[in-house]
Amino acid sequence: MNKYRILIAGGDMRQIYCAKRLSQEFETKLIGFDRDSLPDEFELPFADISSPKKYDCAVLPVPPLDDKGNIYTPCSSETLTLQALQGLLTEKPVIFAGKANEKLKKAFPNAIISDYLLSEELNIKNAVPTAEGAVQLALEELPVTLNGLKVLVVGMGRIGTALVRILQGFGADISAAVHSPRGAAKARLYGVKAVPTKRLGNNYGLVFNTAPKLIFDRSTLEKFDDRTLFIDLASKPGGIDFEAALNLGLKVIWALGLPGKTAPVTSGEIIAETISSMLAERSDDIE
Amino acid sequence: MNKYRILIAGGDMRQIYCAKRLSQEFETKLIGFDRDSLPDEFELPFADISSPKKYDCAVLPVPPLDDKGNIYTPCSSETLTLQALQGLLTEKPVIFAGKANEKLKKAFPNAIISDYLLSEELNIKNAVPTAEGAVQLALEELPVTLNGLKVLVVGMGRIGTALVRILQGFGADISAAVHSPRGAAKARLYGVKAVPTKRLGNNYGLVFNTAPKLIFDRSTLEKFDDRTLFIDLASKPGGIDFEAALNLGLKVIWALGLPGKTAPVTSGEIIAETISSMLAERSDDIE
Amino acid sequence: MNKYRILIAGGDMRQIYCAKRLSQEFETKLIGFDRDSLPDEFELPFADISSPKKYDCAVLPVPPLDDKGNIYTPCSSETLTLQALQGLLTEKPVIFAGKANEKLKKAFPNAIISDYLLSEELNIKNAVPTAEGAVQLALEELPVTLNGLKVLVVGMGRIGTALVRILQGFGADISAAVHSPRGAAKARLYGVKAVPTKRLGNNYGLVFNTAPKLIFDRSTLEKFDDRTLFIDLASKPGGIDFEAALNLGLKVIWALGLPGKTAPVTSGEIIAETISSMLAERSDDIE
Amino acid sequence: MNKYRILIAGGDMRQIYCAKRLSQEFETKLIGFDRDSLPDEFELPFADISSPKKYDCAVLPVPPLDDKGNIYTPCSSETLTLQALQGLLTEKPVIFAGKANEKLKKAFPNAIISDYLLSEELNIKNAVPTAEGAVQLALEELPVTLNGLKVLVVGMGRIGTALVRILQGFGADISAAVHSPRGAAKARLYGVKAVPTKRLGNNYGLVFNTAPKLIFDRSTLEKFDDRTLFIDLASKPGGIDFEAALNLGLKVIWALGLPGKTAPVTSGEIIAETISSMLAERSDDIE
Repeated sequence: MNKYRILIAGGDMRQIYCAKRLSQEFETKLIGFDRDSLPDEFELPFADISSPKKYDCAVLPVPPLDDKGNIYTPCSSETLTLQALQGLLTEKPVIFAGKANEKLKKAFPNAIISDYLLSEELNIKNAVPTAEGAVQLALEELPVTLNGLKVLVVGMGRIGTALVRILQGFGADISAAVHSPRGAAKARLYGVKAVPTKRLGNNYGLVFNTAPKLIFDRSTLEKFDDRTLFIDLASKPGGIDFEAALNLGLKVIWALGLPGKTAPVTSGEIIAETISSMLAERSDDIE
Repeated sequence: MNKYRILIAGGDMRQIYCAKRLSQEFETKLIGFDRDSLPDEFELPFADISSPKKYDCAVLPVPPLDDKGNIYTPCSSETLTLQALQGLLTEKPVIFAGKANEKLKKAFPNAIISDYLLSEELNIKNAVPTAEGAVQLALEELPVTLNGLKVLVVGMGRIGTALVRILQGFGADISAAVHSPRGAAKARLYGVKAVPTKRLGNNYGLVFNTAPKLIFDRSTLEKFDDRTLFIDLASKPGGIDFEAALNLGLKVIWALGLPGKTAPVTSGEIIAETISSMLAERSDDIE
Repeated sequence: MNKYRILIAGGDMRQIYCAKRLSQEFETKLIGFDRDSLPDEFELPFADISSPKKYDCAVLPVPPLDDKGNIYTPCSSETLTLQALQGLLTEKPVIFAGKANEKLKKAFPNAIISDYLLSEELNIKNAVPTAEGAVQLALEELPVTLNGLKVLVVGMGRIGTALVRILQGFGADISAAVHSPRGAAKARLYGVKAVPTKRLGNNYGLVFNTAPKLIFDRSTLEKFDDRTLFIDLASKPGGIDFEAALNLGLKVIWALGLPGKTAPVTSGEIIAETISSMLAERSDDIE
Repeated sequence: MNKYRILIAGGDMRQIYCAKRLSQEFETKLIGFDRDSLPDEFELPFADISSPKKYDCAVLPVPPLDDKGNIYTPCSSETLTLQALQGLLTEKPVIFAGKANEKLKKAFPNAIISDYLLSEELNIKNAVPTAEGAVQLALEELPVTLNGLKVLVVGMGRIGTALVRILQGFGADISAAVHSPRGAAKARLYGVKAVPTKRLGNNYGLVFNTAPKLIFDRSTLEKFDDRTLFIDLASKPGGIDFEAALNLGLKVIWALGLPGKTAPVTSGEIIAETISSMLAERSDDIE
C-alpha cells in the first residue's frame, strides 16, 4: 500500500480536526494556520518549509482559494500563495479540495484533483450534522417548543429523513410536502403525514426546506405570514424565493455553512474519513 | 374524467378489501368469491353475469391464474374460466394483475395489462406491512424480548429501514450489514451500527435478510448456529442458501406471502390505492 | 458473603431459564422436571435426593402449589410433595415463591418466605416483556397494520409507557386516556394525545388497558363495537367489565400469563436477577 | 361558575404570553409593562388604574417581588408598589405567584396565595421545554454531533426521561447513572444503559444532571477532564460541586431559568394552563 505524506493547507477549524484524524493513519503536517489558532491540546507539527522532502498529497479547504487566488487561510495572518504550495508538493500530487475550480487545476496541471464535496460518502455522513445544525437554529429562533409544533419538511432525501428522525424524538407534529402518490407512500414509510405541495397553507410553525428546486415561489409564500419560521438548507439557489420572502416580511433563515459552523469537529472528521476512503480506493486501483 | 366500471375477479381476502376501498370511488363488482367467504358487514354486490353491461376494468389477484389456466379463486368453490371473464369485459379493457403472465396476455390481446406488483407506489407502501409481519414472526418465534436483543438487518432499502424504525421502538440493539464506506455512512444515518459483510459472526439473536442477492452462502452460514433466528424477506432466490442452512441445522423462516397473510386489510387497501393512482394517471394521459 | 445452595423446585420453562441464570452465580440444582422436558443444551444437574447435603434456598414457581397442595410441576410426570421438599432443605431455608400462600407458610414455619412477584425490580423489568407480548397479540389479531392505526392506551404506568415506546416505533396514532390536567400533562410528556376518560368513543382500532381499576364499565363499552380490539393487561378484576363486553359482542383479549408465555427465557432471567438482588440484600443486612 | 377578572402584574415575556392565553377564558388586563415591550400583534388592554372596578385575581411573576419589595417588573420603566397593587384588587383576592414569600403574604393577609411553581401539572409540563432548552445548550456548546455521542443522564425523573426521548431521536449513545437494581431496571425500561453511580468515569462527551442531590462531589469530578461538558438542570444547590468543578477546570453550565429563556411562549402558556386548572378546582370546591 502506498503511504501518503499529507499536507493540510489552509482552512478553518474543520481542517484542523481533519488533520488530527488523518494523522492517526498518515504522516500529516499543517500549513496556513497561526500557531495560536490551534487548540491547546494539539500537537500536529507544522510543515518544515525549508525541508527538501515533498508531500504527495494536499488537502485544501472549502473553498480552496480566496478572492486573490491564494490558498484560503482564515486562521492565518500570513498569505499562502499557490506558488508556495507548489514548492511543497511532489510533481504529481493528489490534491483534495472542496469546490475545486479552474484556477486550481491550472496551477497544478499534473495533479490528480478530487473534489471531496462530490463524494457520496461525505454527503451521506454530512446529513446528520446538517440536520442537527438546522434543529439547533430552530431551537434558538423559536419561542415555543418543538414538542407539539406543526413542522413541515420539504424533501425526503438524506437531510429530510435525518431531520424527521430528530424531530420525532422531540415529539413534533411532522408533515412532508409531496408531489405524487409515490411521495405520499414514502412519507408514510417514515411515519409522517403527507401534504401535496399544491395544498400547502399557513398552519406550520416551522418549515425546513431541503429540496434544491424552487418550491416556495411568490404565490406559495403569499399563503404564509411571519408566524412561520422558514429554514432553507438547500444549496443555492435553494427552494425559497429570497426576494419574495423579504418583500412579504417572512422569517427566513438561509442556513449556509452547516455543519461546518455548528459541528466543526464532526465535520472535519467526516472530511478526513472521506479522504481516507478515497485514498484507499486509489491504492486498490493501483494494486 | 373517465369513470371506470371495475370487476374484481378472484383472489383471497386482500382482493375483497381492495374491492371495498375501490367501491368508494368506482362502481365495483365481485366475481369468483363464494357468498359465505365474505365478512358479514360486506355489501359489495356480485356481478350480474346475465347483464349485457360490460366492465372496462378488471382486477385479478396474485397470481392471476391457477395451475389449470383458470382465474385463481381460492375463496370460491366454482371455477372461473378465462372465457367467462372475457364475456364480462369490454373489447379493450384495462386489466390489473399481480405477476401478469403470457397466458393472460394471449387471452386478452386487446387489453392494456398492468402488473400492480411492479408499481413503485405499491412497493413503497408494502414495506411497512411487510416489516410489521416480519416483526410479528420474530415475536412469535423468539423466547426472549426484542428489547436488548442483538439484531442484524441485511439490506438498507425500504423494508430494511422500515424494520429499523420498528426495532428501535422495541429498544433492540441493531446492526446493519454493509459493503462499503458509503453503506456504513448510511447505517449511521439510520442510527444503527455498521458491520462489514465479511466480518459477520455468530453473535446475533435475530437476522432479517431483505437483500435479494445471496449474502448468506454456506461459508457465511457456517459461522452461525441454532441460537440465531434467520428471517428471509427477500423474494426468491433470497439471500440465504436454503440447502446449506438446512444441512447446518439453522433456524430459518422464509417469510413468503407477507403482508397478505399478516395484514390482509391493509394489503388490499394498498392494491386499491395503487390501482386508483394508475387509473388517474391513465386519465391524465388521455386528457 | 453467604453463598447459597439453591434448589429450583417445579414450574415451567421460566424456572429452567431462571435456574440457568442463577447457576452462573450459585450452586443450583433442579427438582420437579422430567429430563426430557429440558432443552438439549442444558447441563443443569438434578438434585441428588439421597444426598445428606441440604439446600438453604428454594425457588418455587408461580403459583407454588397445585390444586392438591403439592409443588406445581407442569413439566414433570411425577408428584413432588411438600414433605419431599422439606427433606431437601435446611431447617431455616430462604424460600422464593410467586403468590406465596398460607399452605406454604404452614409447611415451612421456620422459613423466610419471599414473594418475588411483589418485588419492584421484577415488576419494572417485566413491563417490557409484557408490553412486547401485548403487541404480539395485537399483531396476530389485527388484519391491519399498527402503522397509522388509532390506538388508545389506558394507564400511563410502567406497562403503559413501555407500550407507548413500542407503538411509536410502529408509527401508530396513540392517545392516552386521562383523568386530570396532571394526566394530560403526563401524556404530553410521553408524546401522545390526551383524551379525557369521560369522552372516550368508538374511534380506536385497538385499546390496551393497563389500569387495574374498572374503566370500561357497561356504559363506556356501549360506545364501542366490534371494530375495536381490546387487550386487557391489568391483573384481575382488570379494567374491562367481562360480562358486559361478552354481551355486547366486543372483541376482548384477557392477556394473562404474559410475559411467561411469550418470552419465557427473558421472564425466567428476570426472576433469577430479582432473586439474586434479594439474596444480595439479605447478605448486606447480615454483614 | 365563578368568572374571575384577572390582573397580570409584572414579569417578563412569559407573563405576557400567560396573559394572552388566559384572556381566551377570562377578562384579563395587564399592569407593570411598558407598552413598547409588548409584541406588535398584542391587543391585551392595560388595566385602567382610575376605574373603581377591582380584580379578584392577580398573577405575579417569578419571583413576585424585586430587591426593594416592589413587584418585579423587568419590562417596565416605572415602579409598581405593593400598595398600588392592593388598590387594584378586591378584599379577598386569589393571588398566584412563583416563589411566594413572607413579604407578599404580609401585604395581602386576606388573600388566598398559591405558588404555581409548586403545581405538579406545571412541573410535569415544564419537563419537556426544560429538556429542549438543555439540548439547545448542548448543541450550541458542543463542536461534535449528538449523534453517536456518549451521553450520561443523571436522574430518571420527568426531565431525565424527557431528555432521553429527545436524545434517542438524535441517535445519542445514552447511559443513565443508577443507584440500585431497581434503578437499573428502570433504565432498561427507557431503553438506555445503566451505569452504577460508583463506577462513573471519564468517557462521556456530555453529562446532564437532573438530580437535586450532590452526585458529582470532588472525588467523582476528579475522574473527569475538560473533554466532558456538564449541564446541571437541578435546582440549587444542584448535583455538581460548583467550586470543585471550577478548581478542576471542568466545563460546567448551570442551566438556570430554563425554560423561561429558551421557550418563553410555551412557558407562559404552561403557567396560564396551570392557573386555569387551579381556578377550575377552586370553583369545583365552591360548588
